[in-house]
Formats: sequence, C-alpha cells, structure tokens
Amino acid sequence: MTIMAEKRVNKVVLAYSGGLDTSIILKWLQTTYGCEVVTFTADLGQGEELGPARDKALLLGIKPENIFIEDVREEFVRDYVFPMFRANAQYEGLYLLGTSIARPLIAKKQIEIAERVGADAVSHGATGKGNDQVRFELGYYALKPDITIIAPWREWDLTSRTKLLEFAEQNQIPIAKDKRGEAPFSVDANLLHASSEGKVLEDPANEVPDYVYSRTIDPEQAPDTPTIITMDFEKGDPVAIDGVRMSPATLLTKLNELGRANGIGRLDLVENRFVGMKSRGMYETPGGTILYFAHRGIESITLDRGAAHLKDELMPKYAELIYNGFWFSPEREMLQAMIDKSQEAVTGRVTLKLYKGSAWVIGRESPYSLYDQDLVTFEEGAVAYDHRDAQGFIRLNALRLRTLGARKRKHGI
Amino acid sequence: MTIMAEKRVNKVVLAYSGGLDTSIILKWLQTTYGCEVVTFTADLGQGEELGPARDKALLLGIKPENIFIEDVREEFVRDYVFPMFRANAQYEGLYLLGTSIARPLIAKKQIEIAERVGADAVSHGATGKGNDQVRFELGYYALKPDITIIAPWREWDLTSRTKLLEFAEQNQIPIAKDKRGEAPFSVDANLLHASSEGKVLEDPANEVPDYVYSRTIDPEQAPDTPTIITMDFEKGDPVAIDGVRMSPATLLTKLNELGRANGIGRLDLVENRFVGMKSRGMYETPGGTILYFAHRGIESITLDRGAAHLKDELMPKYAELIYNGFWFSPEREMLQAMIDKSQEAVTGRVTLKLYKGSAWVIGRESPYSLYDQDLVTFEEGAVAYDHRDAQGFIRLNALRLRTLGARKRKHGI
Amino acid sequence: MTIMAEKRVNKVVLAYSGGLDTSIILKWLQTTYGCEVVTFTADLGQGEELGPARDKALLLGIKPENIFIEDVREEFVRDYVFPMFRANAQYEGLYLLGTSIARPLIAKKQIEIAERVGADAVSHGATGKGNDQVRFELGYYALKPDITIIAPWREWDLTSRTKLLEFAEQNQIPIAKDKRGEAPFSVDANLLHASSEGKVLEDPANEVPDYVYSRTIDPEQAPDTPTIITMDFEKGDPVAIDGVRMSPATLLTKLNELGRANGIGRLDLVENRFVGMKSRGMYETPGGTILYFAHRGIESITLDRGAAHLKDELMPKYAELIYNGFWFSPEREMLQAMIDKSQEAVTGRVTLKLYKGSAWVIGRESPYSLYDQDLVTFEEGAVAYDHRDAQGFIRLNALRLRTLGARKRKHGI
Amino acid sequence: MTIMAEKRVNKVVLAYSGGLDTSIILKWLQTTYGCEVVTFTADLGQGEELGPARDKALLLGIKPENIFIEDVREEFVRDYVFPMFRANAQYEGLYLLGTSIARPLIAKKQIEIAERVGADAVSHGATGKGNDQVRFELGYYALKPDITIIAPWREWDLTSRTKLLEFAEQNQIPIAKDKRGEAPFSVDANLLHASSEGKVLEDPANEVPDYVYSRTIDPEQAPDTPTIITMDFEKGDPVAIDGVRMSPATLLTKLNELGRANGIGRLDLVENRFVGMKSRGMYETPGGTILYFAHRGIESITLDRGAAHLKDELMPKYAELIYNGFWFSPEREMLQAMIDKSQEAVTGRVTLKLYKGSAWVIGRESPYSLYDQDLVTFEEGAVAYDHRDAQGFIRLNALRLRTLGARKRKHGI
Repeated sequence: MTIMAEKRVNKVVLAYSGGLDTSIILKWLQTTYGCEVVTFTADLGQGEELGPARDKALLLGIKPENIFIEDVREEFVRDYVFPMFRANAQYEGLYLLGTSIARPLIAKKQIEIAERVGADAVSHGATGKGNDQVRFELGYYALKPDITIIAPWREWDLTSRTKLLEFAEQNQIPIAKDKRGEAPFSVDANLLHASSEGKVLEDPANEVPDYVYSRTIDPEQAPDTPTIITMDFEKGDPVAIDGVRMSPATLLTKLNELGRANGIGRLDLVENRFVGMKSRGMYETPGGTILYFAHRGIESITLDRGAAHLKDELMPKYAELIYNGFWFSPEREMLQAMIDKSQEAVTGRVTLKLYKGSAWVIGRESPYSLYDQDLVTFEEGAVAYDHRDAQGFIRLNALRLRTLGARKRKHGI
Repeated sequence: MTIMAEKRVNKVVLAYSGGLDTSIILKWLQTTYGCEVVTFTADLGQGEELGPARDKALLLGIKPENIFIEDVREEFVRDYVFPMFRANAQYEGLYLLGTSIARPLIAKKQIEIAERVGADAVSHGATGKGNDQVRFELGYYALKPDITIIAPWREWDLTSRTKLLEFAEQNQIPIAKDKRGEAPFSVDANLLHASSEGKVLEDPANEVPDYVYSRTIDPEQAPDTPTIITMDFEKGDPVAIDGVRMSPATLLTKLNELGRANGIGRLDLVENRFVGMKSRGMYETPGGTILYFAHRGIESITLDRGAAHLKDELMPKYAELIYNGFWFSPEREMLQAMIDKSQEAVTGRVTLKLYKGSAWVIGRESPYSLYDQDLVTFEEGAVAYDHRDAQGFIRLNALRLRTLGARKRKHGI
Repeated sequence: MTIMAEKRVNKVVLAYSGGLDTSIILKWLQTTYGCEVVTFTADLGQGEELGPARDKALLLGIKPENIFIEDVREEFVRDYVFPMFRANAQYEGLYLLGTSIARPLIAKKQIEIAERVGADAVSHGATGKGNDQVRFELGYYALKPDITIIAPWREWDLTSRTKLLEFAEQNQIPIAKDKRGEAPFSVDANLLHASSEGKVLEDPANEVPDYVYSRTIDPEQAPDTPTIITMDFEKGDPVAIDGVRMSPATLLTKLNELGRANGIGRLDLVENRFVGMKSRGMYETPGGTILYFAHRGIESITLDRGAAHLKDELMPKYAELIYNGFWFSPEREMLQAMIDKSQEAVTGRVTLKLYKGSAWVIGRESPYSLYDQDLVTFEEGAVAYDHRDAQGFIRLNALRLRTLGARKRKHGI
Repeated sequence: MTIMAEKRVNKVVLAYSGGLDTSIILKWLQTTYGCEVVTFTADLGQGEELGPARDKALLLGIKPENIFIEDVREEFVRDYVFPMFRANAQYEGLYLLGTSIARPLIAKKQIEIAERVGADAVSHGATGKGNDQVRFELGYYALKPDITIIAPWREWDLTSRTKLLEFAEQNQIPIAKDKRGEAPFSVDANLLHASSEGKVLEDPANEVPDYVYSRTIDPEQAPDTPTIITMDFEKGDPVAIDGVRMSPATLLTKLNELGRANGIGRLDLVENRFVGMKSRGMYETPGGTILYFAHRGIESITLDRGAAHLKDELMPKYAELIYNGFWFSPEREMLQAMIDKSQEAVTGRVTLKLYKGSAWVIGRESPYSLYDQDLVTFEEGAVAYDHRDAQGFIRLNALRLRTLGARKRKHGI
C-alpha cells in the first residue's frame, strides 16, 4: 500500500475521540504526512471518559505536550446551545440541530491549539458524504484562513472496513472486540443529543429498531404518572429547574435526565443534507426538546408580537445556517444580534408536564408579562381597548381588498 | 331601552348557530334595524345537529325561504383545510389555525346567499375584542365591497350577561337552563378543531382544567398500546387511511377519532391576536395534528430541499395571513400558487404511531421518492456523488469566510 | 357652530409649524377643549425660519414658557436618517422615506415636552386619510401609552377650505394673501426631502408640472459638465465630502446642494399607503439619492456576500416598518441591531459622478476592502482559489437537481 | 505537450460562438477526447452574424449535420427575459442579470441537441473562476442528470495566452489580427445586455474607460432634448411602444435603440460571485433599464399592496437564484408561479421620459387601475373611507406598542 500526502504539513491538530477510527487517522497522518500529530479531545457531554483517550494517544506515540484534553461542556451549552435555543431553531421544522451546533466549538478549539503549538494543519474524522466535514472545515477556514485541512476520509484508500482493520493491525492499533464487525449504525453524541444513521436505518420505510435509542427510554416504558417541573428563564436562557439555579451544563444534564426518564425527544427524520442528498437519521434530544417548548412558553407572555413574528420568519434561515456549518459567518452573527436584542425581557417561569414522550407547557408567569392585566389597563377605570376601534381597524385593513373586489366585479380580474 | 340602528338596512344575512347568542342577535336585528333577517347555518362538523336551528329560526319569525342550512363539511376540508395543511401552517410555531380557517368559508356562503336573496347586509356573532370579527368582515368586504356589515357586539348596549338574558326574556327567546349562568369558557368548534378561551382559562399560569377538553381524552387515560396507521397522500393531500380511500371530510373525521382515542392534539397557548393583545386559548386538533406530522413525513422524501426550505421560510407569513383573516387576499393566493406548485409529487404512504398524546412518523415510502437509491445512481457502476467533490464544494463555500478571516486578522474587524 | 370636545384635556402639546393650518388647530384646541396649549416647533431643515412661528404663537395667546422651538437637524440626520440609510431602505423599490423618517423624531420631542410641562395630551396637524397621523400617533403611544391624542382633522367639522378660513377670520388668525385660495398641492419638507401631493398631482397619468419642484433644478437645466465628488464613510455613515469632514446635518446639506444643482433625486410615484389606498406623490431627495448610491458603493467592497444578501432580503420589511410608522417598535429595533452589526467595516471612499439627474458610482476604495488582492492571496505563491474546486462545488450544488431530473425522466414529475 | 482526457466521451455538443476561444476548445476536444464534436451556435442578439461561425466550424472539420445554428431571440426574450422582469429582479440591488438569464436557455438547447444526436457530453467555454460555468452546468445536470460535462478551462493546461495561441497555430486555427494580443477586458453580450470585466476594469477605484462601452452612447453625448415614449403592458409583459405592437425580441431591440441613444443603462458594479469572490463588472442594459422602471410604473397602479410587498420581499431571493444558476430549480419555478399569479391585471400604459442616462416614469394609466376614483367610491354619495376609521385603525395597531411602553415605564425593559 502506498499512500501519498497531498500537501506538505509539519504539525497537525487532530480532533481525536480515542476511538478506533480517529486512532487509525492519527496513525495514517503520521505515516502519510510524516508530520507531528497533536490530539484534541473534548468532553462535550458525549458520555465517554477522557482518560482512555489520553492513554491511547500516548500509546500511539503522541508526546504528552501534544495531547490536549478539555472539558468544554459549560462553554458548549452557554455559548452555543443556549444562543441557538433563543431562536427556537429547528431545521426542516423538526430537528433541533444537536450535531450541527457542536462542530463550530470543536473547530474553534482546534484552531486555538494550532495557534498555540504552531501547527500548520488540522484534521477531523468526518466522512466525505456528510455535513460534518463542511461544518468543521468552514469553521477552520473562517478562523484561520491559511490553515491546511486534512480530511482523511476524502483522501485515503482505506475505503472498506476490511482495509481499515488491516491498517490498524499493521500499525499496532488495538481493536476492541466489538469493533471487528461493521457497526449496525453510526452515532454522534454530545450533551444536547445523540444521533444515529446508516445501515439499519437506511430504509426510511422501516421503523427505527428499539436498540438504536440510547438517550431515552421507550415512551411505552416511561412512568404512568406525569412529572411536573418548573423552569426559570432569564433573558431567554434557562437558569433553574424546580427553583434550583444551575450552571448551563448542569441544567441541561438535569433536563436530559428528566427527558430520558419520560421518553421525550425522539425524532425519526429524513432530512436534506447540505451536500445535496437526503439522509435518514434518528435523533434523541431529551433535554433540548423540553427546553424548546419551555422557551416558546416563556416567550409567549414576554415577547411582543412584532418581535415574535420576525423571529419566526427568520428562524428557518438561522437554522439552515447552523445546519450548513455557517456558525462563524457574518449573517449568523447578524441574526444572533437581532435575536439576542429580543430576549431582554424573556424572563419568568414556565411549568411543564412531562409524560410518555411529550412535554407540555401548562403554565407560565413573568414579572415582565405582556399579558398582565395591569399593563392592559392604562388609566383608572379605562382600558386601552375600545370595541368601537375594531370597526375602523377592520375597515382600513379591508380597504384595499374592497378596491380589489370592486375591480373583480367590474373586470373579472 | 332604546336602540338606534346605525345604518339603513333592508335585508340581512346572519351567520346563525341556533344558540342563545345568535338568537338574541337575530331578534336584535329585527327590532333595531326593522329589517328582514335571513339565517345561514352551516354544518362545519362542529358536532351539533342543524334541525333545532331551523326550528328556532322559524320560532323567531324567520320565513322558511329565508332559512339556509347547508352541510359544508366536504367543501371545508377540501378547499380550506387541505390547502392550508399543504403549507404545514402553524401560527406562532404551534397553532394549527382551526378557528381561523373556517371563517372565510362562512363569509363566502353568507355573501353568496346575500347575492341570491338580494340582501344588502350581513351580520355575525363575533365579539369586538377577538380575531373572528376581522376574519368574517375582511371576507365580506373582499367578496362584496359594497356590503353593509352589522356587528352587534360592537354596536349594542347589551354589555352584560344580565342585559342579554333580559333582552331574551323580553323577546320570548327560549333560554336553556344551563345558559342561565355565565359559561366558564367560550368554545368554537368545527371538523378541524375545538377551541376554548376566557374565564377559567384566563390566567396563563394555571393549568387548563380537564373538563374544558371535549375532543380528546386525557393522554393518561388513552390506551396503553400504540395504534399504528398508514396514511396515503396524493399531490399533498391525504386520500386514504390504512389503505381505505375516503372523501376529505370522512378522512378528517376518521383521523379525529384516532386522535381523540389517543389523546392527540391538545394545545395550551398564549397567542398574539391581530387586534393587538395577547390571549390564552386551549385548542384541540386531534386529526389535524396527525395530518401535520404525516404531511411533513411524506414531504420529507418527495420534496426537494430548495422547495422545502422555501416553503418553510414563507410558512410563518402564510399562517399569519390566515390567522389575521386575509384568506381572500392576493398575497395568500400567490403563496398558495407557490405552495401548490410544490406538491405535484407529494404522493406516497406514511406510517404513524399514535400513543398517549403523540403522533410519530415511523415510516414513509413513495414511488416519487427522492431518497430512492436508483435515483441517486445515474450510471452503471458509477454514482453521482464523488467524495472528492466535497473538497471543492467546501473550499468555494469557505472562500468568502477566508477573505473575511484574513481581514479580521489584519484589521481586527 | 358648536364644537364638542371628545375628551377632557388640561394641557396639550401641539406640533406647530406657524403656518395657517396649525394656527387654526391651535385656536381650535383652545376653544374646543378649553385647555392650555403648548407649541413645539422644530427646525428639521424644512427651509423655513422659526422666528415667525414664535411670534405667531405669542400673537395667538401662547405663554412664552409654553413655546418650545428647537433645532433638531443634527439629531434628525444622525439618529434617524443615517441609521435608515445603513439599510439602503427604499419603500416599494423606489421611495427613500423622507417624510416617514421625520415623524418619529417629532413625536418623541412632543412627548418629552409633555413630560416636562405635565401635559396630558398631544396634537398634530396630519389629515385623516394619510400615513402621517399613523406615524405620529404610533410614536406617541409607544413612548407614553397613557397619552391623550387629539387629531383635529379627524374630529372637527371644518371640512372645507371655506369653513377653515371662516374659522380663522372669526378667531383673528392672520391669513397670508397666498393662502386665500386652495393650494394646488400640499407639501412636506425636511433636510432629507420635500414631497408634494394632491390636487394637480392627483391624476397619475399626467406629468408632474415643473412648478411643483422646489429642491432640484430641472435636469435639462443642470450643468452640461458632470460634477465629480468623493464621499468618505465610517462604519456605514458618511463623514466627509471631497475629503472635508462635516457633521451629519452639514454633510446632508452639502449633498442637497450638489444634488439640487445637478437635478438629482426627483421621483414621481404612485405608492400604497398604510391606511389602504394608493396615492400619487412627487418626492425630491437630492442629497439622499446621492447617499443611497454612495452607500451601496462602499458596501460593495467592504460587506461580505452573506451579510449583504441578508440585508437586501430584509430591507423591504424594514422600509415598510418605517413607512407604516413603526420606528419605535421592537421589530424595527431588532432589524436595526442586525443592520448595525453589519456596518463595522463599511469604511472607505466612494467617487461619484453627478450629471443631469443621475448619480453614478465610478470608484470605491477601502482599507477594509474584501476585494483587495492581498486578502485573496493567503500564502506565498498560492491562492485560495483553485479552478478544480469549482467542479466539486458545481457537482454538489447540482446533486439535488440531478436527482429531481432523474425523477422527472422516470415519472414525468 | 500531452493532454489526457479525463472522461470517455463519444460525442460532445459544444456551445460554439465561432470566436477564437471556442474554436480552440473545439479542436482541443477533438484531439484530447478523440470524440465527434457537434457545435451549437445561438443568435441571442449578441450582435454578431452567425454565417462565419458555420464557415469556421466546417473549416475545423465539423460535419455539416453536426452544425446547429439557431435564432433564439424571441424565445430568449419571451420565456426568460420577460418572466424575470415580471419580478423586478435586481441582483444586489442594482444588476439586471443580463448574463445570468441567457445561460439556462443555451444549456437547454445543448441538451436538446444532445438528445437528438445521441451525444453523451456537453461542453462550454466558461472559465473556472466565474459564475457562468455554474449556470451552464446546473442547467445541464437538471435537464439531463447523466450527461458528461467537459469544462476545458478547468481541465486543460493552456493556462496562458501564449499557450492558447501556440495551440491555435499548431492546429491551423485562424487567428484574427486583433486577437494576437491580450484583450483589455472580456465581454459577454446578448439582446438584453453587454457586460465587460477583467484587466482594465480590475481596480474598482478607477473609472471604467469610455472605450469599454459598446451598447450606449455617453450620457454627455446624448441628445439635449428628452425623448418621450409610451409602453403598453399586458399581464406584466410589454407589448407595444408608442402604440405599435411588437414581438418580444423586436420590442426589446427597439427599447435598446432608445436606451442606447439616450445613454441609459450603464452600471459599474462590484458584485459577489456565487463561487465566492468579489468581481468588478461593467454592464450595459439599455432597453432592460427602461423596461424595469416601466414595469414598476404599471404595477404601481394595477398591483395591490399585499401582492406588491410580497413580490418585493422575495425579489432578492429570486434574483439570487437566477444569478447563481438555479433557473431550472423547483424553488425558482415556485417563485415564478407566485409572481405570474400576481400579474393578471398588470395591464395598461406607461409614459416615460428618456434623457441623458435616465428613464423616468411620468405617467401611467390602466383599465384595471386600483387608483381609479370609481373604484374607491362604492355607493352613490358614499365612500369607502371614513376619517373616523383611522382612529380605530391606529389605536389597535398601537395596542401592543402601548403595552410594551407601559412595561418599559414600569420595569425599564
């Protein structure tokens, strides 16, 4: 097997999970590019310990000073997840963007490390048919335009499971027993969600098998009694559950537990990838799903109609930008400025009922409520609303329609 | 009590339900305007028999030839509900517009009758603080610009329950025993939904009491076993359930039964009215909720990304137009033309799981599927997708971001 | 003649121009409401001296401490005109919103005075068929929700020119000789523009007579030689002409002179009013027209595509909000936050040619130019753009279209 | 020099102009791919005779039955230019899309010929850095997903003018004397416009030299007396000038003459290409510029506000789709359906003044005018507009702003 490096590279920062695939990439980078490899492993809440990743990197010959491991859960939730939920973002009407939102943070960390260690390249383990390669690489390029990007899955000739395993064996990469065969589906996970796709999920006519789910219990197995919780919001972000203030990551972790227990946040979706084809995915976003409804609930009493409708009209575009990997783009930042401006008074408490797959808002209250009766009444004994006003309102709104109607009667068009 | 007519009217077509309120209006029109009253009563699937409405109209002195009763359920579902669901319309992200969509049809029928009987006015029983007055009257004006509109709730001095009942008694209008007291909430219903608002629902911090629900059983009381159904679509509209073809109204009726039994379609919402204030409503849209998810499901494999995203971006505007009463407006018709154009191949079958308040799409298939593997492969042994294409795709998408990134590094902005 | 006050009012702040119409209103307020009148006269650059307004107010019995006169030209241009031009706002594709943008400032000043003098009402001289009443009153209500608004033109019975003049004579209001007859058209003016409408302009088939124009000379009479100027921008706002830094109002005044001399900025338009009918207006925006093209010119090299296109997509909505009077609304403020975010690097110099009615950008340069060759080249001897990238870019953009094309060939749809 | 074919091709349809560049491509295709070449030469109104193209193709060894020459001017204007102008499409606020709109038609013709002659490939002469390659190829792929595309400028090694001329000489391709040196700029032309870019135009700070213009005379040299014309429209399309009915292409030709003579339609622009960089171009669209303003003029009296504003909001997206090459996409077709729906009554006459670079609408009339006084008045002695209606209209529009204002006063946000 001869492999030819496409670019000259001295030092590369690899997004390294410690798993088999990125371990193969690590070795492939060393052997193909003859370059120093720096690993970055993040705790995004994917549910795996980071210690083994360090051990494995050492085993594969990475110098200790080239191993970067960081718990970024708070940053992830505070600076990425919460800003996105302020927008009520849903891609294609349903998907809460759990995978998409984690990529820019990883890209940013890799570039920061590249700057620190003087690396001239970055690398990731995303495949050549998916969205994640786009999200990683748009992030890299936006933050460091002269960076060299190595995308092994688009470059190498390890095009089958067999070749990958051969390469691993030849390079003394340990292979866990359960990794010998092909995985029945592929998984991505972080504190916001877990997603699965491929293989057993490929036929969209077939139901997702139960064993694919990892973050939620089957709604049918969930408790027969609803769980009632409250969530407190400040300026559009959740700050407390049942009155207990928590940090962003702690709060989302708690919401995930609540969601998991009640079977909330499963989504079986055929979506349109940015790279042009449709794919079928299964998403579990237990805490995010509760958060989505709770946020809409608190907005419903604290956000003005004009603000709310403007947000709703621009949400699809905002979600599309994140899905397509344009987090670090001026237009995403402009939309974020617009959204954040609207959240100043999105503060208050929402009560939710969680039950067998659903999260229902059953109450909301706020010191800044625009629903408040005191606000509607402006003077002693007088209200801002006069029934007679409605007539003028309707008549002027109707004026152009009446003109059109008269034309239609006269001319038929 | 003296009441003065504001306009001169000879003959008025009243949207008449047969209930106490519209009976009072009927009498009030006779006594105040001294005009001939023509009643129009529609079966929109609200779940009440129409016979009593005819009897009551006769009792109140309406001439038989002036009593119009029509079953408009098929027209309602075919020409109003289904076109709207092609758009996946949700007002403020959640509300399926059950009340809004019925008003234009009633307005159209009243105007047609007015033309037929030579009436110069129409009247309705919507109050002066709500959206329905707007929806009725924009419809009237658009279809017959020179019509006179009588909106009793904005004109009369029957401003309390007591005054209304006094007027009823003075005018020999029979009052059912349970109508003596104030209703604990007000209701609107048709084949698509039932909505409730007012009184016990007014504090948005308090949960909706269980007795308010009429169209769905409590999810907690729903069966412990899921119901699996299939829905077939043709050109964006549902045509069959479990393989059995049905007319539009029959199909929606069947979906309502399925939704009711599984506790599906409850919504507790604080919404922004067109007339300017927030209100809290409870909606039950059992069949419509299933239809919404099923339609998104069939679109997910048959609709192109460009088409789907354009629809999603314009949906909030489309929904707002319907909510605000602009069904008969050029912009709604333009959007409908755009939406309908997209539905030509939205044909196929969706499988759904209904369970304790939720409707999940678990499978979808179509002869026109864009997901189909045969379509993705264009030639013998070759596929349309080449991994290497992704690099160029990413690099050109990144180009402007790299230019921006370089500026930021040089100039800080 | 008996006039009845509709509301109880103690003290009213009137937007007072010193002209005949607002003098009549002043007197009518005194006689009808029996209230103290406070006058506010602003120098917005309309081109009239303010001294006479003070004299006339005194003559009509206004106490000196109740006469407020203010030069607001700098505030007007800095805080209203320039922010609006950052958006490239044009209503219905053509109108630069000269009248619309002045109303919120006047409303704000009236409310501030009302707070200072303890007035409970405000009043304006806008008619009942136009947009300006809406713009004034939405401003009043947004800034002081409990204010009482007196709109004389909607209330009084002075419904003809004759009645107005009678009232003036009865109340010793001096009438200038040229005000005896009906004006052939009505005018609004400020530093941004002059507009004319009504009477001789009413038939949209007829050309605007030359005597209607006041701010620009006829392009045919303009110099036969072009005028070349440069304009410097900082963060989206113009700061200098021909290298000479000026304050906002001074700069716009200078631009107006340049535009006037070259016959620039005339617009003959039939537009759609917010109150529902079409109207024909003639606008002269000499300096604003130059500014519009200059701003687009500097943006063309300093603004990223994503930012520019997002601005363009939202511009019609932004312009509509200003036209309709929603300057003080959350959605206008949200859009402004978004727009302002985009202007950070909109800095540089534009060269323009002014000639017989037109303003052409003929050159643009900026230290932050995204066009700059140095930025496009990232490394020694290497450029960011590789021709081969285009193939992948095209092929992935084409993928969904190919899938659709294959379906069409197979199924015809 | 060895050139290696990248794909196997039997027969290729080349978009052939007869000029030096596409002649070189023709030869290069023969020698590199060893395939049969079919030429397609279209008369799009570019202003060149087609006879020489046939002669040259014969000279280069193309079989007579493989030479396709077609006058597509009427189809171009009727099916591409006019539909686009119904939308008032302008890319980035200024560019009338003259190049963009011709590409889909050429692509369609090439594919039709490929089907007829059994060709398996198509080829074009667009470079690898521009938009046109995208427009051609998205068209090819949409219409024939399995087509092979040869883009010589991205494939060959003729990367300099010298190499190109060498290749031409080696292959007996005649080189006109004036083609020996490098052209000072490159040109594209069709009946709608001529565009120039590159070389002398590359520095956006420098004015476009006068010799670059070919379709318009310098405004300063244009007649000192305005030209007045009328244009008649039917359903959104122009049908007559000065009362004389003409076919689409004849009409646009006539408009071009009028525009040329009056120096109308020059545009010096820095624009954002789809492929990611900014470029500076000079466009001349004489007839199209007149048509743009005339169409807005006739819409101003025949189009309802709701329809007009919806069009304006979606115009940027529509223009972007055409610019980016997505003419044959579902979303462009959906938007077209929406736009066309709005044009049913866009019929009438516009009067324009043409003078030294400008086209002003000075009058407009229509049997379907919504401005018409008869339409505004619905009954004998009564009008649809009542001044008092405005109060209710304003008060309900203000309601939410008052609620917000009250909150701000109470809570500061």
